[in-house]
Amino acid sequence: VLDVLPELARLPNPVLVDCTAAAGMEEVYVAAFGHGINVVSANKQPLALPQAKRDAMHAAARRHYRVYHYETTVGAALPVIETLKNLVRTGDRVIKIEGAFSGTLGFLCECLTMGEPLSGAVRRAKDLGYTEPHPRDDLSGLDVARKALILARELGLRLDLSDVALSPFVPAEFLAEDDPEKFLQDLVKADGGMSARVAAFKAEGKLLRYLAHIEPEATGPKITVAPVGVDASHPAATLRGAEAFVAFHTERYSQFPLVVRGAGAGGDVTAAGVLADILRLAQNIRGRKG
Amino acid sequence: VLDVLPELARLPNPVLVDCTAAAGMEEVYVAAFGHGINVVSANKQPLALPQAKRDAMHAAARRHYRVYHYETTVGAALPVIETLKNLVRTGDRVIKIEGAFSGTLGFLCECLTMGEPLSGAVRRAKDLGYTEPHPRDDLSGLDVARKALILARELGLRLDLSDVALSPFVPAEFLAEDDPEKFLQDLVKADGGMSARVAAFKAEGKLLRYLAHIEPEATGPKITVAPVGVDASHPAATLRGAEAFVAFHTERYSQFPLVVRGAGAGGDVTAAGVLADILRLAQNIRGRKG
Repeated sequence: VLDVLPELARLPNPVLVDCTAAAGMEEVYVAAFGHGINVVSANKQPLALPQAKRDAMHAAARRHYRVYHYETTVGAALPVIETLKNLVRTGDRVIKIEGAFSGTLGFLCECLTMGEPLSGAVRRAKDLGYTEPHPRDDLSGLDVARKALILARELGLRLDLSDVALSPFVPAEFLAEDDPEKFLQDLVKADGGMSARVAAFKAEGKLLRYLAHIEPEATGPKITVAPVGVDASHPAATLRGAEAFVAFHTERYSQFPLVVRGAGAGGDVTAAGVLADILRLAQNIRGRKG
Repeated sequence: VLDVLPELARLPNPVLVDCTAAAGMEEVYVAAFGHGINVVSANKQPLALPQAKRDAMHAAARRHYRVYHYETTVGAALPVIETLKNLVRTGDRVIKIEGAFSGTLGFLCECLTMGEPLSGAVRRAKDLGYTEPHPRDDLSGLDVARKALILARELGLRLDLSDVALSPFVPAEFLAEDDPEKFLQDLVKADGGMSARVAAFKAEGKLLRYLAHIEPEATGPKITVAPVGVDASHPAATLRGAEAFVAFHTERYSQFPLVVRGAGAGGDVTAAGVLADILRLAQNIRGRKG
């Protein structure tokens, strides 16, 4: 990619659009900014890098007056990042961000609540194309932790992935298996424990959800990602299937949090969000004629 | 205001910020655009003008490459207009927009549901500063109709306020009284009918809400604003107090609508939204250095 940047830079108002999930793209972005190229990206990896690397990337964008939009990294086309940026830059104090960011785990929560055993639900989700090629990559919660870190960093928190208090969706011992088929077979052993957990929640009138919490002023971990039981009155209780949800509790939105929810994953909404980022950029450029 | 525009235009990157609810501001905006001044506005009036006048305003902005931001005209700082613009410009097909846009009427719905008589609830809302100086201006539903029209026009619908199928919150005969105190006294006569309506909804397991519906492909009225009964499973059923809500049902968001909710009125969130509009503008201008 680095080789084509000089050529791309000759186009009027060039934009590099990264729809990969590849590692190492931060170097491409830095080079792109240096060539006067803007970046629109759906790739979470560069945003979840250790803080110093991420700082270098943003510094390069600023130094060359280039734009780096990444709205689709959390909740696809749902207005999450830009909404948070607006809260921060208008001086609101964010007290808590709460969200369900994994369509896959949302689907599994629903299956488990309906009484389906975990291993069967995961296999079905895989067959439906809802999971990564290796379902472990969803069940580890790492993808949700990345999204939570992306939001936390918008608050100016200087934290890394290792600072996230991450409880996987399934017990950690199952996550070691590298072979997807063997992994699915082993998962049968987790069925009983998972069903018991869901039943225990049900007995308390609660529902299983996989939630991320960001509390910038917490004395303990500021980012927590874990399976939890929520009351029927909790906004996440009404989530269905792969629906995503984020609630911003702030000083201004203290009585009624600012809530965004809807389809938060999928090729079509992600593509739409990437296009919206590109058009936002194009609008700014249009403004330059004035 | 017109007199100061030439002076304002000499500032670098001038922005006219309209936090009034005054009529006639569209002429000021057109003149401002002509002077190279951008406009950020929380004023609904210019956006609800007859279509030809509104077209002229937008044409002036385009002709002079100026920006006109008005995010706070619907739902204060909630991301409503920009979210809708993104759906439209990325080619989504909007099937239905549903929303509760009046904090005042939301508050009244809650009071009535708790068994409070209408006239008492309105007087209390007035005393709390939740209503316009004359509560009629809230109870007529006109403010909600304006917001619905603003959203409908983002879809390219060429409609005017007179095209809105508007049912006021209270029977229309009460709205003629010009004196606020006399109005409140007369309203006692509406108490029985209103309580009966709420009780009838309750018997069906429904709750009173004041909702706007925009259905661009409807054969009948495309914009409807009316008090309705909603099921407990309806997203508006869980609205509390002055909370606002909007759901976008689109081709892409068909299974799970894109929903935004939270505090949708009040000086603090409106001011924050106006500031966010100004900063968005400033960011674009910053981009021009490149």
